[in-house]
Amino acid sequence: MNRGFASDNAATVHPQVLEAIAAVNGGHAFGYGHDPFTAELEALFRHEFGEAARVFPVFNGSGANVLAIRATCRPYQAVICTDTAHINVDECGAPEAIAGVKLLTVPQEDGKLTPSGLVARIERVGDEHAVQPRLVSLSQSSELGTVYSAQEIAGLAEIAHGHGMRIHVDGARLANAAAALDLPLRALTTDAGVDIVSFGATKNGALAAEAVVILDPGLAAEMLFLRKQTLQLASKMRFLAAQLRALLTDELWRSNAAHANAMAARLAGALSEAAGLELTRPVQANAVFARLPAAARATLHAAYDFYDWDEAAGEVRWMCAWDTTEADVDEFAAAVRAALRDDRDT
Amino acid sequence: MNRGFASDNAATVHPQVLEAIAAVNGGHAFGYGHDPFTAELEALFRHEFGEAARVFPVFNGSGANVLAIRATCRPYQAVICTDTAHINVDECGAPEAIAGVKLLTVPQEDGKLTPSGLVARIERVGDEHAVQPRLVSLSQSSELGTVYSAQEIAGLAEIAHGHGMRIHVDGARLANAAAALDLPLRALTTDAGVDIVSFGATKNGALAAEAVVILDPGLAAEMLFLRKQTLQLASKMRFLAAQLRALLTDELWRSNAAHANAMAARLAGALSEAAGLELTRPVQANAVFARLPAAARATLHAAYDFYDWDEAAGEVRWMCAWDTTEADVDEFAAAVRAALRDDRDT
Amino acid sequence: MNRGFASDNAATVHPQVLEAIAAVNGGHAFGYGHDPFTAELEALFRHEFGEAARVFPVFNGSGANVLAIRATCRPYQAVICTDTAHINVDECGAPEAIAGVKLLTVPQEDGKLTPSGLVARIERVGDEHAVQPRLVSLSQSSELGTVYSAQEIAGLAEIAHGHGMRIHVDGARLANAAAALDLPLRALTTDAGVDIVSFGATKNGALAAEAVVILDPGLAAEMLFLRKQTLQLASKMRFLAAQLRALLTDELWRSNAAHANAMAARLAGALSEAAGLELTRPVQANAVFARLPAAARATLHAAYDFYDWDEAAGEVRWMCAWDTTEADVDEFAAAVRAALRDDRDT
Amino acid sequence: MNRGFASDNAATVHPQVLEAIAAVNGGHAFGYGHDPFTAELEALFRHEFGEAARVFPVFNGSGANVLAIRATCRPYQAVICTDTAHINVDECGAPEAIAGVKLLTVPQEDGKLTPSGLVARIERVGDEHAVQPRLVSLSQSSELGTVYSAQEIAGLAEIAHGHGMRIHVDGARLANAAAALDLPLRALTTDAGVDIVSFGATKNGALAAEAVVILDPGLAAEMLFLRKQTLQLASKMRFLAAQLRALLTDELWRSNAAHANAMAARLAGALSEAAGLELTRPVQANAVFARLPAAARATLHAAYDFYDWDEAAGEVRWMCAWDTTEADVDEFAAAVRAALRDDRDT
Repeated sequence: MNRGFASDNAATVHPQVLEAIAAVNGGHAFGYGHDPFTAELEALFRHEFGEAARVFPVFNGSGANVLAIRATCRPYQAVICTDTAHINVDECGAPEAIAGVKLLTVPQEDGKLTPSGLVARIERVGDEHAVQPRLVSLSQSSELGTVYSAQEIAGLAEIAHGHGMRIHVDGARLANAAAALDLPLRALTTDAGVDIVSFGATKNGALAAEAVVILDPGLAAEMLFLRKQTLQLASKMRFLAAQLRALLTDELWRSNAAHANAMAARLAGALSEAAGLELTRPVQANAVFARLPAAARATLHAAYDFYDWDEAAGEVRWMCAWDTTEADVDEFAAAVRAALRDDRDT
Repeated sequence: MNRGFASDNAATVHPQVLEAIAAVNGGHAFGYGHDPFTAELEALFRHEFGEAARVFPVFNGSGANVLAIRATCRPYQAVICTDTAHINVDECGAPEAIAGVKLLTVPQEDGKLTPSGLVARIERVGDEHAVQPRLVSLSQSSELGTVYSAQEIAGLAEIAHGHGMRIHVDGARLANAAAALDLPLRALTTDAGVDIVSFGATKNGALAAEAVVILDPGLAAEMLFLRKQTLQLASKMRFLAAQLRALLTDELWRSNAAHANAMAARLAGALSEAAGLELTRPVQANAVFARLPAAARATLHAAYDFYDWDEAAGEVRWMCAWDTTEADVDEFAAAVRAALRDDRDT
Repeated sequence: MNRGFASDNAATVHPQVLEAIAAVNGGHAFGYGHDPFTAELEALFRHEFGEAARVFPVFNGSGANVLAIRATCRPYQAVICTDTAHINVDECGAPEAIAGVKLLTVPQEDGKLTPSGLVARIERVGDEHAVQPRLVSLSQSSELGTVYSAQEIAGLAEIAHGHGMRIHVDGARLANAAAALDLPLRALTTDAGVDIVSFGATKNGALAAEAVVILDPGLAAEMLFLRKQTLQLASKMRFLAAQLRALLTDELWRSNAAHANAMAARLAGALSEAAGLELTRPVQANAVFARLPAAARATLHAAYDFYDWDEAAGEVRWMCAWDTTEADVDEFAAAVRAALRDDRDT
Repeated sequence: MNRGFASDNAATVHPQVLEAIAAVNGGHAFGYGHDPFTAELEALFRHEFGEAARVFPVFNGSGANVLAIRATCRPYQAVICTDTAHINVDECGAPEAIAGVKLLTVPQEDGKLTPSGLVARIERVGDEHAVQPRLVSLSQSSELGTVYSAQEIAGLAEIAHGHGMRIHVDGARLANAAAALDLPLRALTTDAGVDIVSFGATKNGALAAEAVVILDPGLAAEMLFLRKQTLQLASKMRFLAAQLRALLTDELWRSNAAHANAMAARLAGALSEAAGLELTRPVQANAVFARLPAAARATLHAAYDFYDWDEAAGEVRWMCAWDTTEADVDEFAAAVRAALRDDRDT
């Protein structure tokens, strides 16, 4: 099986993650997180996110996001997010059906929530006929491959807190953002005023593991119950803990993310001056968005996995992963150029 | 770490499961089950459950059960189950909160639902003030370590279908039941009239994988959407598929389960005539329930992991796993006898 | 149309309630409770329930109960009630489907929750696999026509509060209990430690009006939003307020309830020595429960509306209303005696 | 209390409605709709909506809308509506929290859903990551006082049915639309292909009564259970039935609505050439939308109840009711002109 550019979740599991799983596979351990491996995880997360951090491993990103919403919102409260947010368009309505909340969406700018967009949605406070804004959720890095600076997040958090709201980071690709900015995880979360994080590991080289990280200790009391009820409590928890531990050891998460980012930069660089192709979004993390002719796209689809992002606009998404190689990129870039050339020649 | 008798989910992952995970860890594969490994799984499940079977891998048992309920019930409909059913007492209210249904409970007999108990709960049909019975859910093997015969299941299914209801098997330990009865899986499910199964793999040697198996094809159309919304859709699905495939290859599930059952029988046999101890339930699968004095229990708790099942009654549960060894059992049985002896001597 | 004994909700609207509706039917008034009539209602409820009381009119009893549960419980929390509680058996699963909670039921004694029954259900506190008890709900008067004394309620409230729980009174017939005990409403609620009340008016002579009364001010902040979202906010609120005001003026609620109670006592008295009939529950409010032969029941059903309560046991419920007359009772009692006589003669 | 222009739900109850309530207030009648008055209602609704119609009285508009959604959608399915739809902005998230669905909103044109807007939202069909469009909901008359023609509704219904969707009319002001178009109710619903209607009566002169009308008989089987569970089943149903009957007798609904519409037309006519004021929406039913200077608005707010619709744009909403008089309108129009004059003079 070759490596395409469909998604970083099409990638493999990092060998150190598999080794970490094997390493804890001896003897019996109490289930549901009451084991020594999960206990040790707390220290690793405190090291990354600060002393107040509490970690709750879960199975997947939708689970992490819905759990974060349930932990912070009552059903008459609402989440403000961009209209491209994963929670809005790619979770089959789970925030509404499982957490019971309404999402108040804001048009995105290069995938990001803007301060003015946020402020415009904090409306009808105290009006019983309207849902009450309670949580700001932003995706870091964003669904369009862009990255919020620490200052941008701090600015959004200040607005949120000033209105009695909390702020959540959907960090399915938080590692990519931190690697892109060369910042510690806490600079983009704890230190920027974030209250709760969906910390992504699966796309970063894990098998199936994410974590909800609580930075506001007031949220912790209900978490055990909510995680269980939200169907996100693993019985053999040590094997989720092992995956997370592997990625948090010696900042493996960072090198994995940095590599994926570098591959996206390499791909964008190789195509930045290709005739007939336009890079449509800033390439800041591990995604490349481009517009190219239909015939060229068809040629490429025949040989490589990737998504049409906006078919009407001719826009595609090429996603690089921790295991994407320079050769993969170079071969694909060559194929793109060839397809564009064929297109022009016809 | 030694091996205790707390739960079969305290056990390790079977080496063949880890090997199967490693074996699919090459190249990219489309996520969410659109990969060749997951596709191959269908044939394996059809082999076990018959040609109409459709399989939907999920993360854990609660997820499987809630998904099965959502697939079969509207919120005004109800599930009939025993009062000891896992869905009733050990899922933190997820059936109510996530599926929206009410559970109508029936007192169990040795952990099992009886035909008369079931019939008594099919009441107020057509009365708009009452929830309407729609699904019968039984646990096989049961939470009390007992096993339904194929005839018993068929009898319950006949009652259910006669009243327009469907029948679900919470098969977190279905393998143990099939091994105990030396029957194929389909004899206890498809052939007995079961409509939908939560097929357990985690307790049987997987890392974190279960599956909802649809035997009534009419239920399939909504499953993809419901699995996603119920937060049970794995992105790197091939690694869940690999776990299930390992257990379904050459009936590894059966040998794992048969071994666990044998260990429970060995433990029960070693203690059946121990003075001061009473076996409180038939030992038919991989659990041993016993009553013994408080002092003896305290002595044992100091050295071994296991649960007090009914503290007031002095009843404990000792659970054997696929990786429990004869030496584990013999050593533990000796410890039990010693603790009982100490108790008598005081 | 004659008057039967089916339910106090088969009764008419009290003339003073209709007059009160007509009296506010002039000019425009802001909707949703922002009108002077609803504002005046607050003082009337404070007069009955004490200075901390806040009132939220709603449409019906199920609405009041579900709103009270939503106001006090998160979905992983549970409500403890009797197995005969209206919320458990007669609201088509609304507490589960709409509030998301699980009900933990306790066998009743003459329709009432006992302290030992309550204590037995406060279990597994802190265990993430189990729902967490949060609200005690008791029906006053009970579904079996019995009445809790103020001391009984205070005892249950003390247990509840001692475990961090809150206490709710489903007071669809609270008026009947207060009339039976000749106590002010606050003696059975505020002064007994109750936190939240579903105050019934419909069965007491209103057209369609109930109210949730908050006695714990900490619950008030979310009530406006929750009432709206729970579909219980009337637009033309003044007409609900008028109904409640009529019943709270000069204790019309009490005279209505006392009359209904007296009619039940009269019926019970008339039949207490009837051969072939057994009064099965203490007659303390406005319901009479009795066991009588099937043939006699059939004879009566042909001429009068009433419910078979437990058909297998031959037990019926005869409910008296504010508009039941002495003549209604005497005629019906005579019919019962005649039916019993016929039965013996056959 | 004077009559303002805040809302048609600030209006009084029509005298014939109160008379109808009084007329059924004799003797006992079985609760929950099992009474002769409710039974007679069926014929009245069949007369209006055709032989297949089934009527389910409920308490209020939000209740009707949420019940209609629950009757037609599973939680992974979605409702397409305008961004100004009442269900989207004025029901405190009840569709999401109680029905569990996501709303897919479309920008409105003069308050109405357009065919192209609808088609654009029917996307990602079969994609398990996205909610699946199932119901089109349109408000007739719209929240902006405009009216869909029968042809427009038929066109939307054809699109909906062509994609396996159903179509719902939020008819809180359906009477105003039918009066405006001088059409029978069925021309705008049954004959146009509508499947389910929230039929509004409260704003049309009732006290508190609406109805869900089923035009697709396939939806009926679940309605009794869903209405009860959605907290919309009145116990003393005859009094809701009486309200609806009064309005459906001799087309009282139409004369009430026509009068309200005429008052809006009168107001718009009186102001159409007023200097400094702009009518911002077509005046087709009983609402007038206008833009006028802040000072003039402030002057008017001091003496009259009405809503600022879009404060930033200086747009107000003036709503006429069944009981608005010509004198009310003329006096108010004079006040508006005076306020505008004062504004210019300053």
